[in-house]
Amino acid sequence: MRRLGIGIDVGGTFIKAAAVTPTGRLLRQQQLPTLVSQGPSSFVARVSALLRSWNGSALRAAALGLGLAGDVDSASGRLRFSPNLPGWEGFDFKRAFRRSLRRAVLVENDANCAVWGAYVTELKRRPRHVVGVTLGTGVGGGLILGGRLYRGATGSAGEIGHTMVEGGGARCHCGARGCLEAYAGNYGIVHTARKLLRRDPRGGRVLRSLCPDLGELTPRHLTLAADRGDAVAREVWRRTGRLVAVGLSNMVLVLNPDVLLLLGGVSRAGHWLLDPIRRVLAEQPFRTHFGHVAVRMAANHNGGCIGAALLALENKDPR
Amino acid sequence: MRRLGIGIDVGGTFIKAAAVTPTGRLLRQQQLPTLVSQGPSSFVARVSALLRSWNGSALRAAALGLGLAGDVDSASGRLRFSPNLPGWEGFDFKRAFRRSLRRAVLVENDANCAVWGAYVTELKRRPRHVVGVTLGTGVGGGLILGGRLYRGATGSAGEIGHTMVEGGGARCHCGARGCLEAYAGNYGIVHTARKLLRRDPRGGRVLRSLCPDLGELTPRHLTLAADRGDAVAREVWRRTGRLVAVGLSNMVLVLNPDVLLLLGGVSRAGHWLLDPIRRVLAEQPFRTHFGHVAVRMAANHNGGCIGAALLALENKDPR
Repeated sequence: MRRLGIGIDVGGTFIKAAAVTPTGRLLRQQQLPTLVSQGPSSFVARVSALLRSWNGSALRAAALGLGLAGDVDSASGRLRFSPNLPGWEGFDFKRAFRRSLRRAVLVENDANCAVWGAYVTELKRRPRHVVGVTLGTGVGGGLILGGRLYRGATGSAGEIGHTMVEGGGARCHCGARGCLEAYAGNYGIVHTARKLLRRDPRGGRVLRSLCPDLGELTPRHLTLAADRGDAVAREVWRRTGRLVAVGLSNMVLVLNPDVLLLLGGVSRAGHWLLDPIRRVLAEQPFRTHFGHVAVRMAANHNGGCIGAALLALENKDPR
Repeated sequence: MRRLGIGIDVGGTFIKAAAVTPTGRLLRQQQLPTLVSQGPSSFVARVSALLRSWNGSALRAAALGLGLAGDVDSASGRLRFSPNLPGWEGFDFKRAFRRSLRRAVLVENDANCAVWGAYVTELKRRPRHVVGVTLGTGVGGGLILGGRLYRGATGSAGEIGHTMVEGGGARCHCGARGCLEAYAGNYGIVHTARKLLRRDPRGGRVLRSLCPDLGELTPRHLTLAADRGDAVAREVWRRTGRLVAVGLSNMVLVLNPDVLLLLGGVSRAGHWLLDPIRRVLAEQPFRTHFGHVAVRMAANHNGGCIGAALLALENKDPR
């Protein structure tokens, strides 16, 4: 009988649950709304009901991994702080899942899970040192150093999205100014687009026709508009890419990784985002660092639950 | 008979050589001019002659460590690139020392050596994760992760001095703009001071009296003037500290270390530098990271050669 892991990736809007083989193959996957305001007990009950309905695979599961958006205390199985899951802080997820499913659960930061999942399933040669950045509503990160997930002193490592890339810059959801997320998180990208459109009332025609109500603008509209030749949309991606590159360059100088791995929704922008990033990295003076590192985009968007499952399996049965 | 290590710390101006016990105690230390223009062969000959003159301790030495200012290829024992040791790139230090002293030499980046030396001798409890920053002519860094020196993919990790802290900012010696070094390296600090003095021709009286020729200004003058109440000098340290704190905050967010360790000449500025750093760190929104990390200044200025010797001993005889 094969050992399986169950991975549960919890974002502010959706929960993804998956049954995963030890090599990272997805056997079954399902999505639920998070319903943050109903609280963590309701979440545990709904996820447990879902997993019980899976029967076979859930019964065979050797380990359960939970990826939560926020600052996670893995030792206690609690969320210390989360802007995306307000009211869930302090709840003992370990105990709740032990009671409800009679199974231990590994609780981990969601970006760490996503980076680990993408590392195992997409970088087959397992390079030793990888800096992963998740680009979505927020911007998170995860570090693979020496082939293992690096967690730092309190399990809070990898907050690349809140490193400063523009002094005195745009206001970030975290409260600080000039964070990478304030430019490369979905809201930051859209903010840049609206600013450029205000400055140029006759520009961005394709963009305006794709999304007449600019209050509804998303990075997906910007990708479509860039594909169709819209100059404003292309300029938004150039600016975003340049600031992502500043954050990535800082990581390369300090961590000297083999691979920079971009993942998350924004990676759908493809070359519109990747080209300016590569351009900035190619201009950097430190030839050894920047000559060595490869930039990759993760194709699989289920890395979060796959990684949660794999980390739980590894934790139960370390190599 | 005790095992001893010999450490040699090579900067652009001076070489420090030391005989060191495995616990990091300095038994003997001597300084030579580097004489960069005479080339690396002359350097090896002069260091070898010095060590032979030490007789006993050099003969008993089990290992030889060399810390070089620049991008070091430890595997080949060569310097890949160094603005401070021009013409020394590509030279095979391993072979040269084997021939001259019949001893293997470990070649390492000088900031890595300095951070390792300070870690072993000054942080007695050996915290697991430490980010070290060397503040001198240039700004370097070294990472201790999981209790070991982290070298990265090509041995080039730790270039904290060239992470960007001010977009489109001051020109750095590396060629880029806005690097931490461009503000916190000796030349950057002096540059800030001259700028403030130009703007305020009647300000900085103490500073001007201590150093009438502003072409000769050093960080030491700024510390003395700050001690004596000079408002311009104090403002220079405030600005420097704030930008050092930006670079350090980025490291804390990503690496979640136990300790931030400042070392090098500029640390003589003491609280003038430390106070604004602590102030900025205390304002950061990520409470877990910033509540956990301690900021320390290394007192011992011989960390470079001590660390080189200790790394060489460890390399010969790993724990």
